[in-house]
Amino acid sequence: MDFLTKAISYLKVNEERFLEELKEICTIPSVSTSPAHETDMLKTAETLAAHMRRIGLSNVQVIATQRHPVVYGESLAGKPGQPVVLVYGHYDVQPAEPLELWRTPAFEPTLRGDELVARGASDMKGQVMASLNAVEALLQNGPLPVNVKFMIEGEEEIGSPSLPKFLRDHKELLACDVVFNPDAGMISPECPTIVYGLRGLAYFELRVSGPEHDLHSGVFGGVVHNPAQALCELVAGMHDAEGRITLPGFYDSVAALDSAEREEMASLPVDEAYYQKQAGVPALWGEAGFSAVERVGGRPSLDVNGIYSGFTGSGSKTVIPAAAMAKISMRLVPNQRPDEVYEQFIAYLEKKAPPTIRWELIPMPGGPACMVSRDLPAVTALEQALKTVWQQPVCYKREGGSVPVVTEMQEILNVESVLTGFGLPDDQIHGPNERLHLPTWRRGTEALVHFFINMGQS
Amino acid sequence: MDFLTKAISYLKVNEERFLEELKEICTIPSVSTSPAHETDMLKTAETLAAHMRRIGLSNVQVIATQRHPVVYGESLAGKPGQPVVLVYGHYDVQPAEPLELWRTPAFEPTLRGDELVARGASDMKGQVMASLNAVEALLQNGPLPVNVKFMIEGEEEIGSPSLPKFLRDHKELLACDVVFNPDAGMISPECPTIVYGLRGLAYFELRVSGPEHDLHSGVFGGVVHNPAQALCELVAGMHDAEGRITLPGFYDSVAALDSAEREEMASLPVDEAYYQKQAGVPALWGEAGFSAVERVGGRPSLDVNGIYSGFTGSGSKTVIPAAAMAKISMRLVPNQRPDEVYEQFIAYLEKKAPPTIRWELIPMPGGPACMVSRDLPAVTALEQALKTVWQQPVCYKREGGSVPVVTEMQEILNVESVLTGFGLPDDQIHGPNERLHLPTWRRGTEALVHFFINMGQS
Repeated sequence: MDFLTKAISYLKVNEERFLEELKEICTIPSVSTSPAHETDMLKTAETLAAHMRRIGLSNVQVIATQRHPVVYGESLAGKPGQPVVLVYGHYDVQPAEPLELWRTPAFEPTLRGDELVARGASDMKGQVMASLNAVEALLQNGPLPVNVKFMIEGEEEIGSPSLPKFLRDHKELLACDVVFNPDAGMISPECPTIVYGLRGLAYFELRVSGPEHDLHSGVFGGVVHNPAQALCELVAGMHDAEGRITLPGFYDSVAALDSAEREEMASLPVDEAYYQKQAGVPALWGEAGFSAVERVGGRPSLDVNGIYSGFTGSGSKTVIPAAAMAKISMRLVPNQRPDEVYEQFIAYLEKKAPPTIRWELIPMPGGPACMVSRDLPAVTALEQALKTVWQQPVCYKREGGSVPVVTEMQEILNVESVLTGFGLPDDQIHGPNERLHLPTWRRGTEALVHFFINMGQS
Repeated sequence: MDFLTKAISYLKVNEERFLEELKEICTIPSVSTSPAHETDMLKTAETLAAHMRRIGLSNVQVIATQRHPVVYGESLAGKPGQPVVLVYGHYDVQPAEPLELWRTPAFEPTLRGDELVARGASDMKGQVMASLNAVEALLQNGPLPVNVKFMIEGEEEIGSPSLPKFLRDHKELLACDVVFNPDAGMISPECPTIVYGLRGLAYFELRVSGPEHDLHSGVFGGVVHNPAQALCELVAGMHDAEGRITLPGFYDSVAALDSAEREEMASLPVDEAYYQKQAGVPALWGEAGFSAVERVGGRPSLDVNGIYSGFTGSGSKTVIPAAAMAKISMRLVPNQRPDEVYEQFIAYLEKKAPPTIRWELIPMPGGPACMVSRDLPAVTALEQALKTVWQQPVCYKREGGSVPVVTEMQEILNVESVLTGFGLPDDQIHGPNERLHLPTWRRGTEALVHFFINMGQS
């Protein structure tokens, strides 16, 4: 048997143990947002570190940060000139609440048919273990054909606050040719996916005020411009009847989708019905002239993330609120910049806000969109690997969200990230009954064996 | 000295004691909304009852209700055929919070120039004591020229939940020809005021929902109609560019203001600047074609009393909220009915709500507008009394708010209410540093002596 065949065979032989190891790590409630789980965070990090040592990684460390530690391990026995792949992952998970909606306890991993149900199974303990399993299969059957580093953080679900400093402090340790990030998902079980674009973000708090204090709606109703109403009017005016965003100049720097990319997007197995089902809405909505997949991946959007004013308890209170607030954010595409969007928002408000109210716009952290070159050797290596295992063409996809770590890796380590993953759209990550489709997970692990071998030949 | 002169002279002689008695009752924190003040409520009621007995009222009782007791007392020694006036008042007060904004403690009544600063001084312990002082002055100087009953409740500031049952249970005890309600205020110290109209209320909770649960604004931004945005669009559409309410048929049953009433309203000393100052807004707003005083008193209005959706904490969260909610209420004028407004609201939503969202409209308690006939003998008696003391024409005014007790007195006791009061617009009732203008209060007490004498002659 050649190296590849032996490694693949190793995966099959150890299938049951891999599942047990995944279940074991899923029993630890590594909820990063909750101070009550601090020891669980440390326990998960130590468990991962022990696992890394067991499979033969060296220089394994649990490195403290301001909040939750990063687990590091490496295998650098590759020949000179072989590339260094940094595998990024996170071991923290979302809170499991509401607990009563789980059919089996969130941290008691349970097999249900082909699926493992547990918080973190898909996002992303399963993806981390798949990467480690692939490296183990290679390490146990010959020298690694590539240099591998693992950096598994514990703060992804809370916005990775310690990551930028960690990257700056450990530039040499983390030096690499490319980042492999399996935290993106697949379009469907039959559709291995590489994500090559991520939207950016501009985020604002808009505050509107009118009266000096809350007023009696009987005494002043009809003479005062209600700040909540004025805010609604401003928000309502931010889209035109075609679903286009009306901030002055908003589309000026938007990179158009070329026809080749639109054709490719049209070929993806994600039609309008797919999005409607995923969102659970009575009907889709959005910018006229673009398909759903185009609107999510290749066009900017504007959303109200929260709004608040006045009396919101049960019952009634007849008040004209003194003020109203909305959190409003835009998803950006190349070549939009958050600071430009801020200027456009200000221009909108200067033009549209009536003299009957006062307003204030507070910008919050955001970032530009991010595109990964599809010509990277790692992308080619991954495409080949996925194709080989799935016997299907690879779906190239732009993701609607942002992955700040990708931007930070670019900015601080000066490396690109290759994004993929073996989670499925209906894995219910972040929700109750999160699950991992095990056949897809095993195929993914096999593809990773191919990927690392391909990388060694790239 | 005749009866009137003696009674007025009695007021002067006892001025200092009256003030002390008012201060005493203002020291008790009778905050009806707070369970912590239950014994204070009872203490206030007992103090009032003791005062009633001392001044010569009979059948004085502290009558328990589900929550806070009602204080009752009467003087029915009048000649046969003399009318019975039921004086309505409340001894409960608004909470004093925020305490740090009071220059002197809320329940340590303090003289500052011509003003007594204390929670409840103006709203409405001062008004209650003025009524009792006037009756005392009459009782001490001859037989009362009219039959008087006092009904002082302890739940006005929490919406008088026990009042309807109390009125039904004590119909005979409370039987009267007219209610005298001094819980309305004056336009200015020089402008004695009779309120003859109150707006009604229709109150709703509008709920909009879209996705089955909160969505990631990156993954779905651009394909899902954001429920908070959809709610804003619906709210924004409820007024046209002229400030008119767009619910279908909303103005159909609105009683027009006739030219005589508009002329009278125009003569009141409440111009646009008055409302702008009172509200503390950068500019007024409202229905085109009507003055501020007309819009508040004689035209319906629609306000957002509260709105809520998604993430409203500090910082940012990139969510498309599953749902959004607004509390929306209308102030009604004759001859609008809350149930008609509900139908109009439903018609608006059926016409305007897009197929991309679901909605639900929940009606909450309201009531129609209420007009008091200006031909009532009690109105004439009060106008004469006010004119005599102030040597000014009386301002007849429509109030923008509702006074549910007025409607309940009509419906349950079948009697009209005459509304006046000696509080001023800048008394800061419900706010910190509530105060009572003592010269106006004393003039008011004197006018009440005239009023009761006039009533005996009516």
